[in-house]
Amino acid sequence: MRVNAAPIPGFWAVVPAGGAGTRLWPLSRAENPKFLHDLTGSGASLLQDTVTRLTPLVAQRCLVVTGAAHRDRVLSQLPHVPADQVLGEPSPRDSMAAIGLAAALLEVREPDAVLGSFAADHVITDLPAFEAAVRRSVEVARAGWLVTIGIEPTGPATGFGYIHQGPELPGHDGAREVLDFVEKPTAEVASAYLASGDYRWNAGMFVVRPGVLLDLLAENHPELAAGLRAIASGEQDLTRAWPGLSRIAIDHAVAEPAAARGRVATVPGSFGWEDVGDFAALGDLLPAQDSGLRVLGDPALVRGVDASGLVVAAGGRTIAVVGLDDVVVVDTGDALLVTTRARAQDVKQVVEALRLEGRADLS
Amino acid sequence: MRVNAAPIPGFWAVVPAGGAGTRLWPLSRAENPKFLHDLTGSGASLLQDTVTRLTPLVAQRCLVVTGAAHRDRVLSQLPHVPADQVLGEPSPRDSMAAIGLAAALLEVREPDAVLGSFAADHVITDLPAFEAAVRRSVEVARAGWLVTIGIEPTGPATGFGYIHQGPELPGHDGAREVLDFVEKPTAEVASAYLASGDYRWNAGMFVVRPGVLLDLLAENHPELAAGLRAIASGEQDLTRAWPGLSRIAIDHAVAEPAAARGRVATVPGSFGWEDVGDFAALGDLLPAQDSGLRVLGDPALVRGVDASGLVVAAGGRTIAVVGLDDVVVVDTGDALLVTTRARAQDVKQVVEALRLEGRADLS
Repeated sequence: MRVNAAPIPGFWAVVPAGGAGTRLWPLSRAENPKFLHDLTGSGASLLQDTVTRLTPLVAQRCLVVTGAAHRDRVLSQLPHVPADQVLGEPSPRDSMAAIGLAAALLEVREPDAVLGSFAADHVITDLPAFEAAVRRSVEVARAGWLVTIGIEPTGPATGFGYIHQGPELPGHDGAREVLDFVEKPTAEVASAYLASGDYRWNAGMFVVRPGVLLDLLAENHPELAAGLRAIASGEQDLTRAWPGLSRIAIDHAVAEPAAARGRVATVPGSFGWEDVGDFAALGDLLPAQDSGLRVLGDPALVRGVDASGLVVAAGGRTIAVVGLDDVVVVDTGDALLVTTRARAQDVKQVVEALRLEGRADLS
Repeated sequence: MRVNAAPIPGFWAVVPAGGAGTRLWPLSRAENPKFLHDLTGSGASLLQDTVTRLTPLVAQRCLVVTGAAHRDRVLSQLPHVPADQVLGEPSPRDSMAAIGLAAALLEVREPDAVLGSFAADHVITDLPAFEAAVRRSVEVARAGWLVTIGIEPTGPATGFGYIHQGPELPGHDGAREVLDFVEKPTAEVASAYLASGDYRWNAGMFVVRPGVLLDLLAENHPELAAGLRAIASGEQDLTRAWPGLSRIAIDHAVAEPAAARGRVATVPGSFGWEDVGDFAALGDLLPAQDSGLRVLGDPALVRGVDASGLVVAAGGRTIAVVGLDDVVVVDTGDALLVTTRARAQDVKQVVEALRLEGRADLS
């Protein structure tokens, strides 16, 4: 039973739905990216699961920012989100422009709002813990902080950036100041972070008042903040102004410089977070079948003999795996990947080669 | 330039085209067996290559014995073979009945003929050497011997039966008497065979006068010899008599007992013979691409990154293999196999399981 089940007054979710998920090729494609897929066997796409997870916190107050090319599919996957809350970016301009556009629109529409950004392609298993972390983050954000939810590390991961925590914030039980953000570490450095207890994973979950975010942006990138505000006010046309905006991640544009000026806080989160960055991570999300294989799709299609690893059965065909451990087999209608857990990241090389060859049909 | 390019007078080829090629699943199926496939990238099926290889020796004198269910496809693959020379077995009755039926028909039609049996699903690369071995075998067979062509071993193979050679045959340069046939040996025994120089691989190539073959058969299996002769004479109806015939391999029915009585000779052969028994053998037949992979099908469909092994691209899809050595990937329209060279034989387990489940569509 939830202690606090009502939506948070004035709280808006911003869901950037971008990125091709190259490391999940051939399941994820530029034209059919990761967030549109059911990668957990839940029956819903990652995007749908993300919006469903946020609904108890925001009710209808959800803005999705996606590529113009994907807007129709996003709308059809989210029939309960009003069409004017699904924003189509004319071209990819990275996370600062996407989240900043939502912030600028909210600043006009509801200046006292708080927004929280949550990627469309992550998985979270402990929903009550997630909701509690968000509620606490909103409280801290109302006091004027840029808040980032710091995920408690479950191991010395080298695939994520880390949040370096400083002293506790007076009056906000459990929240801490952020000293700085650090890029993906080596395995050795990650182990030291884990041992220190002072580092948390950066999942890109920022909670902040829209005006605070844009003012922080204006300190280092005044032209970008002004451009976003001009679009939101109607002073400039989205389609015409968008290509002129800087292409920069929110971490570099705002979070890192603001942390250096003591303006960023972090609230701890421990709620089974997974960014499903590659097939090794995807395999970890799925239960092992009797055969020893983990299956995304219909397990009846998959036969294993002395086999372990992940099989994605998305091509409708029978798949037999004999005598291979930690294998990754991804079967789709027009492309097939065979690799190993250990090499799961290197599928990028295949996608890059296909793109260089102009194989838009496959990449 | 061939020294002797004319067909051999009175020599008939008998091509048993049977067997599902279970170890080549999912390429080979009960309904679409191995011999109907192009497994070498030659542009022709193994059956077509077999008949083409024999044509210089026999001209039109070729009898193909296949399952009734496959007869139409065999006929369409072999437009130059007269339809009455493609015999359809009402049901599988093993190699003695198949070759014995051809022998019995020849005994009636052309009693002075010599027949040579050559499986429809083997590969031979050195055609002049093959032709020379067959010509010599026919000479020995005319003298009343059951002749088997003994393949010079290229390694201590454990997947073939061996021919144990005895003393040379007077008057037949290079031919030797056969002491006995031995079953597939262990690796240790195979090495000893190789070192002795007295053993050759048994490729099931028997050259013999039809009457000699049937008389030898009659010594141990009189009812089978009589049944085949009754069908050939028209005394009995093929469809009605066939199910009553013994199901036995020609090796056990004739070759082994005849060898024990000093009636079998062997002629040496060294002509790049391969029975393509599994995907490991198939891989050896194909050249490696720049990627390191060997490809059956369109190499443009296959991408390899740090990969070696065999990819069969028979499903029309792009296939990427990343970070796997000695892998076997067989992609067809409705089924996919992923295994390794070392486990190539174990695909049988998958096929057996599918058959037990009644999945005739897949097995």
